[in-house]
Amino acid sequence: MRGSVKPVDNAPAGELELIRWIRARAGSTRQSQVRLGIGDDCALLRSRAGEELAVTTDLSIAGRHFELAWQPAEAIGHRILTRGLSDLAAMGARPLAAFLSLGLPRELAQARRRSAGPQGRADAVEGSRAASWIDRFFDGFLALAEATATPLAGGDVAESPILAADIVLIGAVKRGRALRRCGARPGDLVYVTGELGGAAAGLQTLAERAVRRPQRRAGPAPIALRIPRGLEAALTAHLWPQPRLAQGQWLAARRAATAAIDISDGLSTDLAHLCEESGVAAEIDAASLPVHRSATLEQALHGGEDYELLFTASAATRLLRSIAGVPVTRIGRLVRRNTRRPLMTLLMADGPQALEPRGWEHFARSG
Amino acid sequence: MRGSVKPVDNAPAGELELIRWIRARAGSTRQSQVRLGIGDDCALLRSRAGEELAVTTDLSIAGRHFELAWQPAEAIGHRILTRGLSDLAAMGARPLAAFLSLGLPRELAQARRRSAGPQGRADAVEGSRAASWIDRFFDGFLALAEATATPLAGGDVAESPILAADIVLIGAVKRGRALRRCGARPGDLVYVTGELGGAAAGLQTLAERAVRRPQRRAGPAPIALRIPRGLEAALTAHLWPQPRLAQGQWLAARRAATAAIDISDGLSTDLAHLCEESGVAAEIDAASLPVHRSATLEQALHGGEDYELLFTASAATRLLRSIAGVPVTRIGRLVRRNTRRPLMTLLMADGPQALEPRGWEHFARSG
Repeated sequence: MRGSVKPVDNAPAGELELIRWIRARAGSTRQSQVRLGIGDDCALLRSRAGEELAVTTDLSIAGRHFELAWQPAEAIGHRILTRGLSDLAAMGARPLAAFLSLGLPRELAQARRRSAGPQGRADAVEGSRAASWIDRFFDGFLALAEATATPLAGGDVAESPILAADIVLIGAVKRGRALRRCGARPGDLVYVTGELGGAAAGLQTLAERAVRRPQRRAGPAPIALRIPRGLEAALTAHLWPQPRLAQGQWLAARRAATAAIDISDGLSTDLAHLCEESGVAAEIDAASLPVHRSATLEQALHGGEDYELLFTASAATRLLRSIAGVPVTRIGRLVRRNTRRPLMTLLMADGPQALEPRGWEHFARSG
Repeated sequence: MRGSVKPVDNAPAGELELIRWIRARAGSTRQSQVRLGIGDDCALLRSRAGEELAVTTDLSIAGRHFELAWQPAEAIGHRILTRGLSDLAAMGARPLAAFLSLGLPRELAQARRRSAGPQGRADAVEGSRAASWIDRFFDGFLALAEATATPLAGGDVAESPILAADIVLIGAVKRGRALRRCGARPGDLVYVTGELGGAAAGLQTLAERAVRRPQRRAGPAPIALRIPRGLEAALTAHLWPQPRLAQGQWLAARRAATAAIDISDGLSTDLAHLCEESGVAAEIDAASLPVHRSATLEQALHGGEDYELLFTASAATRLLRSIAGVPVTRIGRLVRRNTRRPLMTLLMADGPQALEPRGWEHFARSG
């Protein structure tokens, strides 16, 4: 019943304009496997012979998955795309196309128009005045899309009382090569890419700052929100997480991993998923964890949104110390699952202890 | 930053449980081209040689695209899937898989748990007590999914202050056969499937009834909402729109249509899209319009959500009077676009008049 409540006269102008503006910003889909992008009932994609398609959707809700008052618009756009790309990375897939459905509060769409050029032309935004929230959101989103060769091939826009963004990623992977959660076996070794806990540490820094300096008003995004210079480095892992696409594809192409998952909800929670799907138990060496320099062990174990890959490999598999420039660290091993031991054990200097899944149980995800 | 605001202790229990329950209800994806469904980082699909993939996303927001207080939960589930399937129909594609991202208010998730069995087992819902809103939503969604051979292969669930649903459909169509909006030429004839205006008429009936008998409370869905018996027939087109998949596939397989679009926003608005993308103008014979028996001419011209197909065909193409049991009606013709005539003309008994796109300009859609 779209629009049934608010017919066109009451709706803010510029809704179709917004789609046209996104279409123009999204740019060409030539040189890609997208045969038809934004502007028809469906987009059209072609896969290559011998490939299967990996599909993932991730829904982000303001106040739950991101905070308009704390985080720059560019970082929110970047993070939303990262969430989808990281799922492709965890399967070893390369991105073919992204689709973005945006539920937008009226203020954010209006903000875009306020900053349009004197003729109100949507394409005149750049350089005319301060960039609006939606401009900056797409700056972050499209910069990562370009860096990862992921065309924005479609989506939807609807007026909404709260900001909601559903990101859909379609990727391709050779048949039978996709990394799964369920292939790990007792005796396999456990690895992670990059460092852990940095995103949680950065989030805490931002949250504490928000408590000390509350925003003058609640409500929609402060357009001019900027991160102070001194904090940028400490917040990089939180604001600009990198999907580990090259690492996932490397593992899939070489059949080097027996199972993989991305660390979106925290090592302890995502390792539990992997153990459950594979029917194994895990022992993690606390001393071996690559804890981010600004993070605590707790944050490395349970903090979400690092978007690193957690994977397992046979003990006979030789792995490099880094893949495509990102360190790979062995953090433990898998053992048989039985009723006398916990699903996950943390080996500390003073002895073993049960490791509980205490990452964020954001509303659970699937597919 | 999923869950950053509400860590697991504050979140309602049963979020992962809800995913498991949906996974169980969604059933097997064997016998389909879905190689891996709900439960990993991505779903995996295989397309057949010589096919391309059609992808569409449609975002529905409570209070804008549907009304919890007016519409039965089953009908909301049915409609949300119809929106996506109808886009596939408009391209002539057959469905391969659906993905559903749901932003759910806490009350609706709790409602599901309240009606669970004495052990609180999510799978004990059926028959234990009155079905909850989310149960009934999936009743409607999955009945249409089964009828159209569309496996639910994944999605996402997040807590949200408002109900939001993003439906993603992936379909397949032979390479080069997809129906586009842009292929129509002057001289082509204009057709629609089924009848027009029935959905708008039904919506008006419901809206008037809501004004006469306001709900005792605003807020979440009245679990027991039922449509009174006498109204069911008049509301069928509104509550249970049928995606015209067989008709779209018939047209694509025979290369019978030069262009197509589904009527989601109203004939006048969707015809305008087709004319703009094809660079043509249109003349519509008012007397020939297949107006639904309970609808006015205005509703047939501008009412949204009929989900019929609007298509064009060469005058040399012989079309049946019905395709797969649904009537096909010729309603006009295309002419050259020039500055002396409006984009669309309505031919009435008392002469021609300009036809303006006055369908719902819900927040515009793409891809």
